[in-house]
Amino acid sequence: MAKTSKASPFAPATLPKLAPIDGVRFATAEAGIRYQNRTDVMVAVMEEGTTAAGVLTQSKTCSAPVLWCRKSLKGGTARILVVNSGNANAFTGMKGRAAVEATAEAAAQAVGCKDKDVYIASTGVIGEPLDPAKFTHLLAGLATKAVPDAFEAAARAIMTTDTYPKLATRTALIGDTPVAINGFCKGAGMIAPDMATMLCFIFTDAAIAADVLQDLLNEHVKTTFNSMTIDGDTSTSDTCLVFATGAATARGQKPITKSKSKRLKDFSNALQDLMRDLAIQVAKDGEGISKFVTFIVEGAETEAAARKIALSCANSPILKTAIAGEDPNWGRVVMAVGKSGEAADRDQLAIWFGEHCVARHGERAEEYDEATVAQYMKNAEITIRINAGAGTAAGTVWTCDLTHDYVSINADYRS
Amino acid sequence: MAKTSKASPFAPATLPKLAPIDGVRFATAEAGIRYQNRTDVMVAVMEEGTTAAGVLTQSKTCSAPVLWCRKSLKGGTARILVVNSGNANAFTGMKGRAAVEATAEAAAQAVGCKDKDVYIASTGVIGEPLDPAKFTHLLAGLATKAVPDAFEAAARAIMTTDTYPKLATRTALIGDTPVAINGFCKGAGMIAPDMATMLCFIFTDAAIAADVLQDLLNEHVKTTFNSMTIDGDTSTSDTCLVFATGAATARGQKPITKSKSKRLKDFSNALQDLMRDLAIQVAKDGEGISKFVTFIVEGAETEAAARKIALSCANSPILKTAIAGEDPNWGRVVMAVGKSGEAADRDQLAIWFGEHCVARHGERAEEYDEATVAQYMKNAEITIRINAGAGTAAGTVWTCDLTHDYVSINADYRS
Repeated sequence: MAKTSKASPFAPATLPKLAPIDGVRFATAEAGIRYQNRTDVMVAVMEEGTTAAGVLTQSKTCSAPVLWCRKSLKGGTARILVVNSGNANAFTGMKGRAAVEATAEAAAQAVGCKDKDVYIASTGVIGEPLDPAKFTHLLAGLATKAVPDAFEAAARAIMTTDTYPKLATRTALIGDTPVAINGFCKGAGMIAPDMATMLCFIFTDAAIAADVLQDLLNEHVKTTFNSMTIDGDTSTSDTCLVFATGAATARGQKPITKSKSKRLKDFSNALQDLMRDLAIQVAKDGEGISKFVTFIVEGAETEAAARKIALSCANSPILKTAIAGEDPNWGRVVMAVGKSGEAADRDQLAIWFGEHCVARHGERAEEYDEATVAQYMKNAEITIRINAGAGTAAGTVWTCDLTHDYVSINADYRS
Repeated sequence: MAKTSKASPFAPATLPKLAPIDGVRFATAEAGIRYQNRTDVMVAVMEEGTTAAGVLTQSKTCSAPVLWCRKSLKGGTARILVVNSGNANAFTGMKGRAAVEATAEAAAQAVGCKDKDVYIASTGVIGEPLDPAKFTHLLAGLATKAVPDAFEAAARAIMTTDTYPKLATRTALIGDTPVAINGFCKGAGMIAPDMATMLCFIFTDAAIAADVLQDLLNEHVKTTFNSMTIDGDTSTSDTCLVFATGAATARGQKPITKSKSKRLKDFSNALQDLMRDLAIQVAKDGEGISKFVTFIVEGAETEAAARKIALSCANSPILKTAIAGEDPNWGRVVMAVGKSGEAADRDQLAIWFGEHCVARHGERAEEYDEATVAQYMKNAEITIRINAGAGTAAGTVWTCDLTHDYVSINADYRS
């Protein structure tokens, strides 16, 4: 059992209120998979006609549920999502596949759908066999009692070492029809020891074809979840799924079937904004966090290059420990830019900590004053901006610092 | 000034004794570049006919001395090497280039050679202009007073936050002629905060053409210095140079001019062995180290893939903190293998901690006993072996754990 961490200093005072989305209902249960006295199973039931898109971990040792979702996504339709916390069902061999199949069978029966309309995600310990009998008998009842107004309860059921639930909501217009997008997610990457996984589930009442939804997700994941890092580790279970129930057609929305549709623009922007919001919430709950850090890279050759340079900074242990120590150690930024492998003009490189220029034209800025920048480093939110001097593209990455608490949480986890 | 760290628990009780190498002499001085009361300039003077090979940092923000060496290496000959500690002369713009040129001019005059036979390395703070006048006036005197029997003094002059000098010596036969190889180096990667840099200098009396020496170095750096990591960060100044004085020709060694020469084999093995020895010494002096860790990957598709999987493990903060906490957290090994991107058969993957098999055939080993493996984790030296189940190639990587001391050293560096 994970030791209880103190709450992130960035835990929100109040949680956003998510209104129901037509066409989807939620239920949760305490199945006692690993935790006691808390919910650990979440079911989302969706109306017929719901489309689905997803992005899954690139890990070569991905979990059994990830393989299942990859197969279901080929169909692009969804009726039920089952998520458990406490056990990742990863690296569990044949037993893992059997557990997924048993879960899928019970879930399909619960709503009367085909296997391919079932989606499954698991998060928690790696390598422990997951006994599906702990919750498969609950699924039919959960599907029946599921209610629309239960986003927060759903978000809480999938938490592991998160210190707060992560929720976001947006609205958009498709043509003249307002549609809603709600999402929730849990702790990032391998921030959460044995409790691996970033899971994110997004629901909308918009009517959007699965391939269009997939294109949107592929595009926006780059600038949101893939622009956020805690410790650079990739879990076996990372899963981001978007479900579109299509219920807005009842209010006059004409279904979108082409990615190039101009009617998609407002929805696309809202979805990206929601995903960015959730990604930042995850970074702000990074294990042991004392400072939230934003790296903005400008002057890169491409947007991908900008993000790679920013990630190189955001994943550098030596730079992250300096930030934890409130040390304006910009030499380590130079190092991290250099090691990214992306084009940067050493003699044009410029770096700002907040509004303070510390380096330009490839050397220390004349006005640099260590005391001033050291004072800036005392802020809880730090922004480091870099101009690579190699082009015009930009990118942003969010992360947290690397603290004694991170080491304590992860070194002492099972002791 | 870096705070004095406590000595690594792996600091050797006695240093190896390096006998003189015919054709090279050393001298050191206290120039007060940054440190007080210690040597910080080192000069190596080599006989005419000395060949040179080198491997330099891949950083896009490399230092001025690295650019200089890259140019000199095109000629493949060497007469003098000048190294300073306390200032990396990195990210110093035009001033940095001027400092290198002034150093090269004084060094070339000191021994009466061309600019292209001068090699320069600097290690220390990034971004501070280096004033070459602090030591250029010393170079002629140093070249005159240089002596052959001074390897340890040379190794000490280039240290920054290293807690011990790193020295190694080997002998080899080329034909019937015995030749010697001596090397020394200093702290790895960015383990050493502002004090960036891995520097390594190797000297031999063998007569070997520069391009042959370069081929050897390129080959062996893969399995030695590039198979060692502290925190995954790449410095702006990493420099590994090999100099062959050719003095062994006086004892009958016929010069080697072809990489395929069979007479090269024993020398090649000895050079690799010496480089491996030095790389391990660097890892054992990693900042904040409490445990020395060896990752052995077998069953990979290629040797490069094996090293990449091993490096993915060795650079994972969450796995390194678990090792610091003596937690046999093999789920994090599964994660790190998966994120490497290299082929691994999830259902064939096997993992050992020391002699204890913790996983095989893609799931937890039946005989796994946490208490037994937890006991193994109390050792100072930990070996984790992985069979990726995807081929027959193997690779080894050395690293240290990630401890509270690492965070303290790097977070509190300037406070």
